[in-house]
Amino acid sequence: MPHQDIIVAVATPPGAGAIAVIRLSGPGCLTLLDKVFKGRTKPSAATPNTIIYGHIVDGQSLVDEVLISVFCSPASYTGEDVAEISCHGSVFIQKSIIELLIRTGAGIAAPGEFTQRAFLNGKKDLLQAEAVADLIAAESQAMHAVALNQMRGGFSKELAGLRNKLIEFASLIELELDFSQEDVEFANRNDLSALSNGIIGRIEELISSFKLGNAIKNGIPVAIAGRPNAGKSTLLNALLNEDRAIVSEIAGTTRDTIEERLIIEGIEFRIIDTAGLRQSNDTIEQMGVKKSYEKINLSAVLLYVFDISQVAEKLEFDKEMAEALAFDVPCIFVANKVDETSKPVVGSLKDIPNIIFISAKNGSGLEELKSALVTLSVGKNFNTQSVIVSNARHYEALIKTRQALLDVNNAMDMHIPADLMAIDLRKALFHLGEITGNISTEELLGSIFGNFCIGK
Amino acid sequence: MPHQDIIVAVATPPGAGAIAVIRLSGPGCLTLLDKVFKGRTKPSAATPNTIIYGHIVDGQSLVDEVLISVFCSPASYTGEDVAEISCHGSVFIQKSIIELLIRTGAGIAAPGEFTQRAFLNGKKDLLQAEAVADLIAAESQAMHAVALNQMRGGFSKELAGLRNKLIEFASLIELELDFSQEDVEFANRNDLSALSNGIIGRIEELISSFKLGNAIKNGIPVAIAGRPNAGKSTLLNALLNEDRAIVSEIAGTTRDTIEERLIIEGIEFRIIDTAGLRQSNDTIEQMGVKKSYEKINLSAVLLYVFDISQVAEKLEFDKEMAEALAFDVPCIFVANKVDETSKPVVGSLKDIPNIIFISAKNGSGLEELKSALVTLSVGKNFNTQSVIVSNARHYEALIKTRQALLDVNNAMDMHIPADLMAIDLRKALFHLGEITGNISTEELLGSIFGNFCIGK
Repeated sequence: MPHQDIIVAVATPPGAGAIAVIRLSGPGCLTLLDKVFKGRTKPSAATPNTIIYGHIVDGQSLVDEVLISVFCSPASYTGEDVAEISCHGSVFIQKSIIELLIRTGAGIAAPGEFTQRAFLNGKKDLLQAEAVADLIAAESQAMHAVALNQMRGGFSKELAGLRNKLIEFASLIELELDFSQEDVEFANRNDLSALSNGIIGRIEELISSFKLGNAIKNGIPVAIAGRPNAGKSTLLNALLNEDRAIVSEIAGTTRDTIEERLIIEGIEFRIIDTAGLRQSNDTIEQMGVKKSYEKINLSAVLLYVFDISQVAEKLEFDKEMAEALAFDVPCIFVANKVDETSKPVVGSLKDIPNIIFISAKNGSGLEELKSALVTLSVGKNFNTQSVIVSNARHYEALIKTRQALLDVNNAMDMHIPADLMAIDLRKALFHLGEITGNISTEELLGSIFGNFCIGK
Repeated sequence: MPHQDIIVAVATPPGAGAIAVIRLSGPGCLTLLDKVFKGRTKPSAATPNTIIYGHIVDGQSLVDEVLISVFCSPASYTGEDVAEISCHGSVFIQKSIIELLIRTGAGIAAPGEFTQRAFLNGKKDLLQAEAVADLIAAESQAMHAVALNQMRGGFSKELAGLRNKLIEFASLIELELDFSQEDVEFANRNDLSALSNGIIGRIEELISSFKLGNAIKNGIPVAIAGRPNAGKSTLLNALLNEDRAIVSEIAGTTRDTIEERLIIEGIEFRIIDTAGLRQSNDTIEQMGVKKSYEKINLSAVLLYVFDISQVAEKLEFDKEMAEALAFDVPCIFVANKVDETSKPVVGSLKDIPNIIFISAKNGSGLEELKSALVTLSVGKNFNTQSVIVSNARHYEALIKTRQALLDVNNAMDMHIPADLMAIDLRKALFHLGEITGNISTEELLGSIFGNFCIGK
């Protein structure tokens, strides 16, 4: 990432709107703005946290009437002097002002550079900075809550607690090292072991929360499968119509797979409608069915739809169930077309776990199906206020931390000298520190902030 | 348009970005905001034109960390109390805050309602208000300059001058009416006639500027035509590559017509590539050619491309020229592939007006072609600082004003009594007043502001 003193970028979404905001940050940015601004008050002379009115001018020619919000170091987003220019929202004006500021001496901000500066200036730790990108990308209530919690420091506090315990542990070991010639053990090995296990236990909870966190972040993949004409597509449409949620049709890699996004109880699901499952001699249809199997195996939940009006006795259902259970995926049995049958078999199936009777056509049973979907994928006691790991980088660092701590435990069990144990302990501290950015490298920062949107 | 006390809308472009701005306007909007805001300073207690930091909360649950810019009546965009909430730019957050504010008592703003309020509160006249919409939509330097000039009151001042002259005229006539029994003429008919003709002259200048204004606003349509393989598409690509301007491919109504937007010297052109012109027995190709003829007849300039390397003598060129001139459209003859010929015919064509020798392949002659295009479409002395009418509503009102004044002149010529003349004069004043909004009706305002984008 290039290092410039003053950076500039459009901070509002791309395109035209009533207004747009152009953000400028860096020492001297207010004086730079003075050069292209005409108004009663100069930006550099404005009281911090006030808004001034005036014109952006390019030599003699007027570019726009604007409002400028002035922030002074350290009380700003980046911790530096910052100006936010609120201009008319045409693409032309946005481009003109950016170009003018670059000609006047600012540099175009790299993606995430404002937030990176906030991190480098100690306004945010790395976890909080990363949460900003997640917050901006959040499209569901659940992801919003997870990101907001992380941005406000929930996860940071949790990790700081673990880190302090590890440091306490490490200091006891390091003390032993100072007296290593005397072969004394200052630290009671049982106490150490309990401490280490406690930390490992909490780290494992965090690691296991990643499955949920990742699903919340990227949407929980749910496959709809079943024999042809079981009512799969009708079910998909019924689910979508009910919620009027973010709906988009993504053309799949095969013409047989359609993916739609659906938000239920604030959680985003990616509902994948698959081709009907049946034996076929048609090569293209076989390929479609093969693709369906792959999609089902990658999903978190399978909605196995069957036509209950075609099931005369329990034995036939058992065949369907066997087909569904052949997949190693948690499954809800969706008994569709319950409105078209009055057969006694319905009663005999009522006790099957995870069976839901619906009519995709008239909508009965859909609410029950949605609750079952939420329960099966995120659990009954889902709470976005607790710390949930949603970032693959954090997940990997936690895995490495756990491994280092397991090595420490092994070392203790095998009565390995403290100096070797200390190496693993430092490794654990290093990986934990990587998450919050207590320990960071240029390369790590580049890869993190490179994924941000411009202007943040 | 619904009338609500407090209105709210997202003011920044739609979609996700680093930040988004939500605008709130109306008496009591700051107190309304107090109810969903937690911070050191309440919005209603903030100093005008300052920025406060805090949280938007929905009951117990945190929605976002925000900055709020506070403006107090009358020193605000609308003239009312205004708050601009700068939040994280996720679509989810924008939607959540808007919904929360609506639940708290705000109403969703109709398109243009903020600017309409600015008009109703006397912050802007109608011309200036309309210019805001044009400014936001402006994609070229020229349209930006026209809209900015209009927003800053250039056109308003011009019309106010004309209106004052008309009022002076009218008052002389009205004076005569008071003494109508006495058959006196206070106003010298020759002076009146001169005054009226002066006004008509200026109005006609404004009317004739509309052709240019409209072209600047909507882009100047330029058709590229010529026989197959003359190099039409190569020319189009060469023009586009040179400028790297706003480029978009609009699939035409037929598969044969492609429209690209290109900005030259700050002016937007819509370059239409047409199907090759030739006789054909193929029905589909005939339809394509017919479409080409229609497109050419609707364009402002025709770029007629021919392959100079295939032209052995002037007679052959004359045939091409006849084909081009059959269209009633100003034409530039584009002699393409000049790099592939050394024939003496080139010399014999040099004096043809509006001929440009180019090589679309190696780019020679393109700059000359572009200047010729600008000169032919907007004239040599194009000046965006002068008043240019770009709005069809203004154009129509000017036409009506002119007609009413011509009727006044007729009445004078025919010595029609002053009371009848006064009716036409009042009509002229009415139509001129309609433009700036000195005279306006609910219906007129609805149709003007209904075309704005939301949030402005």
